[in-house]
Amino acid sequence: MSSDFWPAQTKKLRDMIGMEHPIIQAPMAGGPTTPELVAAVSNAGGLGSYPGGYLSPDEIDSAIRKIRALTDKPFAVNLFTPEKTLRRKTPAKVMKKLGEIAGEVGAELPREIAAEGFSFEEQLGAVLDNNVPVFSFTFGIPKSKHMKELRRRKVTVIGTATCVAEGVMLEEAGCSAVAAQGSEAGGHRGSFAHAGEFPLVGSMPLTPQIVDKVSVPVICSGGIMDGRGIAAALALGASAVQMGTAFLTCEEAAVPAPWLDALRNSLDSSTVLTRVYTGKYARGIRNRFYDEMSGLEGKVPAYPVQNYLTRPIRNASRAKGNPEFMSLWAGQGSAMSRRCTAAELVTMLVSEYGEAVARLGGGA
Amino acid sequence: MSSDFWPAQTKKLRDMIGMEHPIIQAPMAGGPTTPELVAAVSNAGGLGSYPGGYLSPDEIDSAIRKIRALTDKPFAVNLFTPEKTLRRKTPAKVMKKLGEIAGEVGAELPREIAAEGFSFEEQLGAVLDNNVPVFSFTFGIPKSKHMKELRRRKVTVIGTATCVAEGVMLEEAGCSAVAAQGSEAGGHRGSFAHAGEFPLVGSMPLTPQIVDKVSVPVICSGGIMDGRGIAAALALGASAVQMGTAFLTCEEAAVPAPWLDALRNSLDSSTVLTRVYTGKYARGIRNRFYDEMSGLEGKVPAYPVQNYLTRPIRNASRAKGNPEFMSLWAGQGSAMSRRCTAAELVTMLVSEYGEAVARLGGGA
Repeated sequence: MSSDFWPAQTKKLRDMIGMEHPIIQAPMAGGPTTPELVAAVSNAGGLGSYPGGYLSPDEIDSAIRKIRALTDKPFAVNLFTPEKTLRRKTPAKVMKKLGEIAGEVGAELPREIAAEGFSFEEQLGAVLDNNVPVFSFTFGIPKSKHMKELRRRKVTVIGTATCVAEGVMLEEAGCSAVAAQGSEAGGHRGSFAHAGEFPLVGSMPLTPQIVDKVSVPVICSGGIMDGRGIAAALALGASAVQMGTAFLTCEEAAVPAPWLDALRNSLDSSTVLTRVYTGKYARGIRNRFYDEMSGLEGKVPAYPVQNYLTRPIRNASRAKGNPEFMSLWAGQGSAMSRRCTAAELVTMLVSEYGEAVARLGGGA
Repeated sequence: MSSDFWPAQTKKLRDMIGMEHPIIQAPMAGGPTTPELVAAVSNAGGLGSYPGGYLSPDEIDSAIRKIRALTDKPFAVNLFTPEKTLRRKTPAKVMKKLGEIAGEVGAELPREIAAEGFSFEEQLGAVLDNNVPVFSFTFGIPKSKHMKELRRRKVTVIGTATCVAEGVMLEEAGCSAVAAQGSEAGGHRGSFAHAGEFPLVGSMPLTPQIVDKVSVPVICSGGIMDGRGIAAALALGASAVQMGTAFLTCEEAAVPAPWLDALRNSLDSSTVLTRVYTGKYARGIRNRFYDEMSGLEGKVPAYPVQNYLTRPIRNASRAKGNPEFMSLWAGQGSAMSRRCTAAELVTMLVSEYGEAVARLGGGA
């Protein structure tokens, strides 16, 4: 591969991070992203991202040590910026329905919602203490003192935007790069600027609009599954892509069999965007939990309350190998996913990108 | 421009239609698409499309004559496949709210819903009698006898798909090409295979998934506003693009001033997808009509009933130069729209495409 295989626009971000390919594996929280997956992506020349959002500082510390034992390449750790939890009482209708479902799968609903025993600040401490080279965050913007500390330590900081306004806010807050999350993306929406509403802008119009309004590199995500998607994202002006679903089916990921089967059998129209699993809009493959709960879409409590409430149900469903009451996060490209190692996937992506660009011709 | 400026994959469709550039101006029904716009796009080497969906056979005939007086290049006419109208009574809550709004803008609600005085078959007759070279349709698939007649007359037939299943159905029905409408697109969703639900797949994952499942050329639409978008669409495997919003602000289009201003001042997050204007999901810039009606989203009658009911309100609002009670159709890229002639726009798109591809490098 010649030194100008990737377009010049990718160089700044690749140099900043120290990655060969402008391919970032998205941090997929809740289990699927293992230290092995993160290290394999980084070893293959991309950037692996470890999701620390749900984890204690000790767990984050331990995962980082595992990643470091497997790679000396740069990698990212992702955290959730803290939510203003709405402590409203969960409506009786929601509790009744969840109780019925819990009975069916043999789960017990939590009696009370206990706060996590750690703070964002403590999680971030674990990231900083380990000198993690790249830090990404979702669901908002960390406090200015945290952003300053990250800059002081020369950490590359990536924020997540779902619209131009959020992208501009992230640049103003001092981010090194902005990940533009298109409406196609699997898992949670990163939206934070639109209270009560959320823009659902697709990757195709979102990427160039953010590129035109910020001066930092933009990372395109949402619906990218192969080298054609990477070529499209870079044509739109992105400096890199972030891919989640495509890495879910890698052998290094820890995806339970029912989820893997659901991905394999999915169609382009299989996913729904809903609050019923966690209280925050997220995209996943439609199953019975959605069908049972979707009538209560507007009534389920906000994240993280609904997330705590449904966790025992989702765990019990997974333990039984039953896909119907788990969250089966997936983006709208899930039907294009492939079973292979992360290294094989990165190699394919690079080669497919070359083919896609060659097909476009010289434009002359 | 050399003969291989456009990628080889575009050649089949360009040759079939007889267009120089793989750029189709989307048929935007309800007023904005004039014969002048259609002819200007075709004269510039793209394909103009005239929307006949709301028009009588005589009006379609007259428009085609006007187009033919302005160009000898190929152009398309688009029709809506007939709806199974649900003749359910409009809920009193909807009538009450519409009555209030009608009072505010000085409009009178229709006393009864009269059927149009013409059929799809008669509209199609006007298209066939005029030997229109390209026929596109939306909202379903014409009857097999109509598809046969179109093929017999060697008309290039383009159907509209919003998911892979619809794309496959269109190919099986004998379409010459499939327009893949991403969730970003302005105006009405073309979905027809999913009763009561609709997939909202973005252009980025929709295009390659349809390309992989049909053998006819695929036209990418939804959120494409400039040459970067065209390069992205072709990288995803499309044979051409279809652009609506980008042509709305062309000087040849008949877009009332309040709509033009709304487009000019729009953001990426300005649009909503809603049934409240016409009874069928459509994307437009959010205004007071949406805010007043959105609580009744699930209650408004199906298209075309709601369309008839709200038409006097939208007409009165437009007549007063008031953007708040019109339908302001727009895609998610509307903030990137430019004011110029259609010929200037096509020239810019071609040149920007060349620049975008050149930026990608050779991929080698």
